[in-house]
Amino acid sequence: MLTGVRIVFLGGDARQIEVIRKCVELDATVSAAGFDKWVTPCEGVSLELMSAELLSHADVLVLPTVGCDDEGNIKALFSSENLQLLDEHAAVLPAHCMVYTGMAKEYLRQLCSKYKLKLVELLDRDDVAIYNSIPTAEGALVMAIQNTDFTIHGSTSMVLGMGRTGFTMARSLQGLGSKVKMGVRRQEHFARAKEMGWEAFMTDDLLHHVADVDLIFNTIPSMVITAQVLTRISRNCVIIDLASAPGGCDFRYAEKRGIKAILAPGLPGIVAPKSAGIIMANALVQSISDVSFNQGG
Amino acid sequence: MLTGVRIVFLGGDARQIEVIRKCVELDATVSAAGFDKWVTPCEGVSLELMSAELLSHADVLVLPTVGCDDEGNIKALFSSENLQLLDEHAAVLPAHCMVYTGMAKEYLRQLCSKYKLKLVELLDRDDVAIYNSIPTAEGALVMAIQNTDFTIHGSTSMVLGMGRTGFTMARSLQGLGSKVKMGVRRQEHFARAKEMGWEAFMTDDLLHHVADVDLIFNTIPSMVITAQVLTRISRNCVIIDLASAPGGCDFRYAEKRGIKAILAPGLPGIVAPKSAGIIMANALVQSISDVSFNQGG
Repeated sequence: MLTGVRIVFLGGDARQIEVIRKCVELDATVSAAGFDKWVTPCEGVSLELMSAELLSHADVLVLPTVGCDDEGNIKALFSSENLQLLDEHAAVLPAHCMVYTGMAKEYLRQLCSKYKLKLVELLDRDDVAIYNSIPTAEGALVMAIQNTDFTIHGSTSMVLGMGRTGFTMARSLQGLGSKVKMGVRRQEHFARAKEMGWEAFMTDDLLHHVADVDLIFNTIPSMVITAQVLTRISRNCVIIDLASAPGGCDFRYAEKRGIKAILAPGLPGIVAPKSAGIIMANALVQSISDVSFNQGG
Repeated sequence: MLTGVRIVFLGGDARQIEVIRKCVELDATVSAAGFDKWVTPCEGVSLELMSAELLSHADVLVLPTVGCDDEGNIKALFSSENLQLLDEHAAVLPAHCMVYTGMAKEYLRQLCSKYKLKLVELLDRDDVAIYNSIPTAEGALVMAIQNTDFTIHGSTSMVLGMGRTGFTMARSLQGLGSKVKMGVRRQEHFARAKEMGWEAFMTDDLLHHVADVDLIFNTIPSMVITAQVLTRISRNCVIIDLASAPGGCDFRYAEKRGIKAILAPGLPGIVAPKSAGIIMANALVQSISDVSFNQGG
């Protein structure tokens, strides 16, 4: 339970509504700014305007998955007003207040550092990244099915990188009957890939494995699908790049060769906002529960 | 090989191009009407206008998957002209000519019967229906992912009917990590469903199994998701009806209750025209090869 914990939400999309719902359920004292257009707010949440007063009582401040930009602007899908987190706001947060977001930009990092506030980036957590890989993989499958004229079943697909997303991606492809080739950089990943029934290879050797591939899903956040690699890929192959922007593919050259290469945006919030919200909610609650708050603030 | 067999194609979409390609590859003598807008026709096919002359030499006549409508109109995606199969056309077909389509309407049946032409409906074949169930299932997954805010993984899904499509649908859902409930009408299907790791139940007892279901995929072509069943379904449940029109769901009542219920159109041709074309091509070639043609016509 989160009884007595004062949580303030600033902006967000449909995911944040799931997080708010969960915190209310667990008896936290929940306020939210940037939700004036939320049609059916859940009982127990107090919808407020952004103010120093609101923030001065917060034990926990929750920002959207993408935090705020470099001017402090916070995306608020359920509000028509601009929401901004400024120096003066950070200044009034209690010293013990914890600031949560998915991924922080430099602006937010510096603000928290200046006022010695603990900043938690939920997407840094391994468990969150693994849970999030599920909607990511399902979204990537939708993109693959929509951008090809063949079925996943019976195709040869390649996954680059056997991290948290790569593993889920490969298992999902296998689940639909694709033959999976897995590009890894470590011997223990090579062994696990073989054990999973995938054809494993070292990414150093990528050039020699791309010729017969119908689909490539990249999760490695550095230039791996180079122009040289692209010259060996079939023109009918579709590349879906799941690595954070700018991805790991030479998109300019892919376009020149007429190969469809797509940088996939943050899929979880698009494909399954409810599931993605529940993932964030569970991680937030677990993280808050690990701290004991002095209720006096 | 189909050397010496004269095949005439009338209309069709991207699938038919795969079929034409395959027949050319196997050395048949291939003509096609209704393809005047085909930008890069494959070498070896002779693009013609529809005429009695063209038909009078056909050993095999291939119509699109949906055949023709009740006025004989043939859909031709790669043509700007109307294509129509009339009595006078059927009259000039050689007596030994075989007429192929996916599914025939009454008009085509009567025409073939009148002139004693052998009519083959490829979608009647079990193997074709099983292969086609793969793109159908992948298309249904895309619809499910796009019409829900949760992931397939971790959801509870229900498949009604364990025929050729139902089996593939359930296996695909299972492959993505959904908990699958399978509604069957026969004890041997009940046993196989259990063996596959699905929760089996008899469809007579459907009312008692729908309460906790997130997704329903119906393959039974009769009214099974009745108003009474719909009153027990969660409002967030999404129904995807894969049975041939008019499907097996009371769509009017579903809409009234605010439950999303979608009648899925012919998914293979939409989701994976190339794969769907190859499926038809293989079946056609196999069927033609089973007959020995008198090359004199």
